[in-house]
Amino acid sequence: MDYFEVLEKRYSCRKFTDQEVEDDKINKILEAGRLSPTAVNFQPERIYVCKSKEILEKLSSACKYTFNAKLIFVIAYDSNVSWKRRSDGTEFGPVDAAIVTTNMMNAATALGLGSTFVCSMHEDKVEEILGLPNNIKVLSLLPVGYPAEVKAHGARKNIEEIVEYR
Amino acid sequence: MDYFEVLEKRYSCRKFTDQEVEDDKINKILEAGRLSPTAVNFQPERIYVCKSKEILEKLSSACKYTFNAKLIFVIAYDSNVSWKRRSDGTEFGPVDAAIVTTNMMNAATALGLGSTFVCSMHEDKVEEILGLPNNIKVLSLLPVGYPAEVKAHGARKNIEEIVEYR
Repeated sequence: MDYFEVLEKRYSCRKFTDQEVEDDKINKILEAGRLSPTAVNFQPERIYVCKSKEILEKLSSACKYTFNAKLIFVIAYDSNVSWKRRSDGTEFGPVDAAIVTTNMMNAATALGLGSTFVCSMHEDKVEEILGLPNNIKVLSLLPVGYPAEVKAHGARKNIEEIVEYR
Repeated sequence: MDYFEVLEKRYSCRKFTDQEVEDDKINKILEAGRLSPTAVNFQPERIYVCKSKEILEKLSSACKYTFNAKLIFVIAYDSNVSWKRRSDGTEFGPVDAAIVTTNMMNAATALGLGSTFVCSMHEDKVEEILGLPNNIKVLSLLPVGYPAEVKAHGARKNIEEIVEYR
């Protein structure tokens, strides 16, 4: 699908059919994450593909917004690997994980799937459910599936409200 | 351009020709930013299109990585508008600005342009140069132009190194 068409078509999908997402589509979404640029190319991203019934049920308990998806990607970063800006110590793991999630989310749309970029969760509970060591920090959940309804993306501000020239 | 082709072709472009980027391409890149999802659709992103010689020279003084680009987008967020997660107070403005920068960066590639997602800078100096109020926080610089050389993206880890199944 054309890149700009992807951006137009993507919306936060909150209702999925029972149809399972095929492995080749899962692999293409993962490849979109893998190809993503990260600060200093340190590649701190860690992606957990959650498909087992047990884990999906536990994730639903830690996050209201899993929408009964049968496939949830959890996107995290390894804080032992991520870039910290030298001048002020800022941790860029969350920014890297956001780049990765964005590219995976758009990939889902390009493959005819729906998804939602979710950060509203108790991340410590998600880390516990997945059995992650302390250095792996969760940024987002990306529930993915075949959309049960096709909607338009949310209304956006006019360009004049967000852009200035210098 | 096909979405997956964009991801394959995108690389951090650090050398630009003198050719000016046309206004319609600038507008398409801005539209990619505008269409981006943000937490709770609060749309805290603020984008500064920097083209004046004076501002470009000043930005170069605050950031080593502007690559003499004649067009630099500065992507920021309004901390009075951005979402703070209720459970732990986490500020999601940087994540939203990262989503916006990612979509703009990919748009540049889709339009035959080069760019680099830059966070290595003294952000307080950039905010001062642009004359931003205290609530506007800069996340990234995106120098954009016609590439003087076409390169491959950096090497990436194997999928097994970043992905696990649960």
